[in-house]
Amino acid sequence: MKLAERLSKLGTETAFAVSAEAAAHIAKGNRVYPLHLGDMNIKTPDNIIEATHKAMKDGKTGYCPNYGIPKLREVLATDINKSHGTNYTVENVAIQPGGKPTISKFFMAMMNAGDEVLYPNPGYPIYESQIEFQGGKGLPYTYHEGKENFELDIDEIESKITKQTKLIVVNDLQNPMGAEASPAELVALAEMIKRHDLFVLCDEAYFDIRYEGKSNSLAALPDMEERCLVLYTFSKKFAMTGWRLGATLGPKEAIDTIAKLNVNDESCSNHFIQYGAIEALTGNQSGAQEIVRILKERRDMAVSMLNSIEGVKCFNPNATFYLFPNVTGAMKRKGFDDYEKFRRAALQETGVSFCTRRHFGRPLPGESERYIRFAYSGIDVGDIKEGLTRFKEWLES
Amino acid sequence: MKLAERLSKLGTETAFAVSAEAAAHIAKGNRVYPLHLGDMNIKTPDNIIEATHKAMKDGKTGYCPNYGIPKLREVLATDINKSHGTNYTVENVAIQPGGKPTISKFFMAMMNAGDEVLYPNPGYPIYESQIEFQGGKGLPYTYHEGKENFELDIDEIESKITKQTKLIVVNDLQNPMGAEASPAELVALAEMIKRHDLFVLCDEAYFDIRYEGKSNSLAALPDMEERCLVLYTFSKKFAMTGWRLGATLGPKEAIDTIAKLNVNDESCSNHFIQYGAIEALTGNQSGAQEIVRILKERRDMAVSMLNSIEGVKCFNPNATFYLFPNVTGAMKRKGFDDYEKFRRAALQETGVSFCTRRHFGRPLPGESERYIRFAYSGIDVGDIKEGLTRFKEWLES
Repeated sequence: MKLAERLSKLGTETAFAVSAEAAAHIAKGNRVYPLHLGDMNIKTPDNIIEATHKAMKDGKTGYCPNYGIPKLREVLATDINKSHGTNYTVENVAIQPGGKPTISKFFMAMMNAGDEVLYPNPGYPIYESQIEFQGGKGLPYTYHEGKENFELDIDEIESKITKQTKLIVVNDLQNPMGAEASPAELVALAEMIKRHDLFVLCDEAYFDIRYEGKSNSLAALPDMEERCLVLYTFSKKFAMTGWRLGATLGPKEAIDTIAKLNVNDESCSNHFIQYGAIEALTGNQSGAQEIVRILKERRDMAVSMLNSIEGVKCFNPNATFYLFPNVTGAMKRKGFDDYEKFRRAALQETGVSFCTRRHFGRPLPGESERYIRFAYSGIDVGDIKEGLTRFKEWLES
Repeated sequence: MKLAERLSKLGTETAFAVSAEAAAHIAKGNRVYPLHLGDMNIKTPDNIIEATHKAMKDGKTGYCPNYGIPKLREVLATDINKSHGTNYTVENVAIQPGGKPTISKFFMAMMNAGDEVLYPNPGYPIYESQIEFQGGKGLPYTYHEGKENFELDIDEIESKITKQTKLIVVNDLQNPMGAEASPAELVALAEMIKRHDLFVLCDEAYFDIRYEGKSNSLAALPDMEERCLVLYTFSKKFAMTGWRLGATLGPKEAIDTIAKLNVNDESCSNHFIQYGAIEALTGNQSGAQEIVRILKERRDMAVSMLNSIEGVKCFNPNATFYLFPNVTGAMKRKGFDDYEKFRRAALQETGVSFCTRRHFGRPLPGESERYIRFAYSGIDVGDIKEGLTRFKEWLES
């Protein structure tokens, strides 16, 4: 047996290795505070579960169209138009088995071998993996510490563009940093994209996980709808991570191509859970509101605890369920230079499990500050307090 | 917006266009006898639905491992070992969102650009699509009319092999032909595969849709387990087509690679339906038995009706839910030379909707006999009788 050569370029989510270590630590009888994974320990709202059960019993168990069921595509277009100010119709929506399928399909549909693709680093590691696995060339761009959150430097991004640069991945409301562009930054980014005739993967997985203010979409800016494919997911807003349901939204020609890839890759998405998704979008919204309320409480606790630690500085993002504290001082104080040694020591000494900057891309030239990533979607507020108290005691000891 | 160049090589299932025409015919107030699609009009057994509902309510709504939940992998390995005589363990199983994902992932994992791949024609059109889209070169092999069913000519297949030929797709219990290799043919095929050091995609989607005798697996023959990736699906045996759940089975190294592709493409398969699948494999089997009983009744009716028509000759396959009658005489008698004209005239005149040989690959050099394909999984036995009575009257008029 000989595996394909291109597999040497396939990346993965190394965060899963952190999960395995946390599980091993628990198996030895230790307490673990799981702040490493973006999974959710909040139940899917009951009305969504019951609508899905009804659809199963009603015989919605055969294939559905490769684009998804028309009613869900329609209500999703309406929902997105309302929150974004876009002009999508049913023809601009292809239902997917999760948010992630939009990433690999975007590159299959839009990228030629040798094309350069701008993508965020630190960023979700599947972008780089799929760009390189599918024969493209990744151009990482980064964020910088601003006053209230991490910020883009549009000039710096623009300076990387060559004639081979065709695509850009934008993950505003960002994993792992919780970064968010201001309306003015978003406009400047859109102008740059149009200046260089780029096409965009607009990853909006965290668009609706929002505590204050209003999320803004790059796709809603003038002349941008036609150059964006938007990644939508039911995973976060409705605590449906394990359901695997999402959608791609964009220009009809691109959506038709994406849906043809669906015929090839999985025929269609699960039929009956799409009825649950219709209920999610059009039914009682108290479940989704409660999810955001719970997450906000956790964020407030985690940010305040982290900022009380000597040598730790943490922004207070208005969206996502991630924190990306600067731990340069704390690591130095404890005598750590290596991310993995620091992470493992924290797990052993305090039970606090987290990812580091290294789980979100290769270090960039000149990078000196140290960051770790906390996800607070899978841990209750009391455990955040308890775990981060231990973490503080350890770091300050 | 400029789509990727390689999309010119992406194929699709043209059978969906037949569905659209059938739907349009119904919309005009006509009766249609749907014999064109391999979807099922049989409900998923209740015990599977209720086990799934319980898992949803029990909070199995977060991510599961990218390989699938360990218990399902374990019971599936046990189930396959029992029916096949193989030696799989939990490490040899990666759960997939359907049967189809095994096809695209097989080529991602095993094929280099320029590799030649043997595949059946007539055959499931996604093989050719994925071989060519992913940069391989397809070498079609065909089946020949034997006495009781379609047969492979191993010497003919072997004559196509060059130094660049690395892979073969085997779909014994075949769509669209209902063909099935005898035990001796299977052994000869395995010997040929070993002689040329090929690696195999063993598509067993219809392994358990069986009316008489016992299905045999290429993967169970000596030294073959290590050179086969087996496509398994829950779709047919348990009438779960719209659930999108299946698995890839094979050597650990290949399965680890497939599971890494799962991390990239969809994170994992839907979590809670995997509990339904455990119930499907280990719970009450009366639902699965009833599905086969219903399908056998339909097969018997369809085969007997078709063979009563002048100029039509149809085998009586012991497995699958497809028939591939030779209609050379009937087409000639009615003055049709073109497949599509014949298919459309039948729909207009009789309401009987079917696919033709052309939906399953390009015609091969020297091909002179004419075939159409009936799928009887989505139509009740009474409607088969009524529809094929009209079809007979039209063809014999």
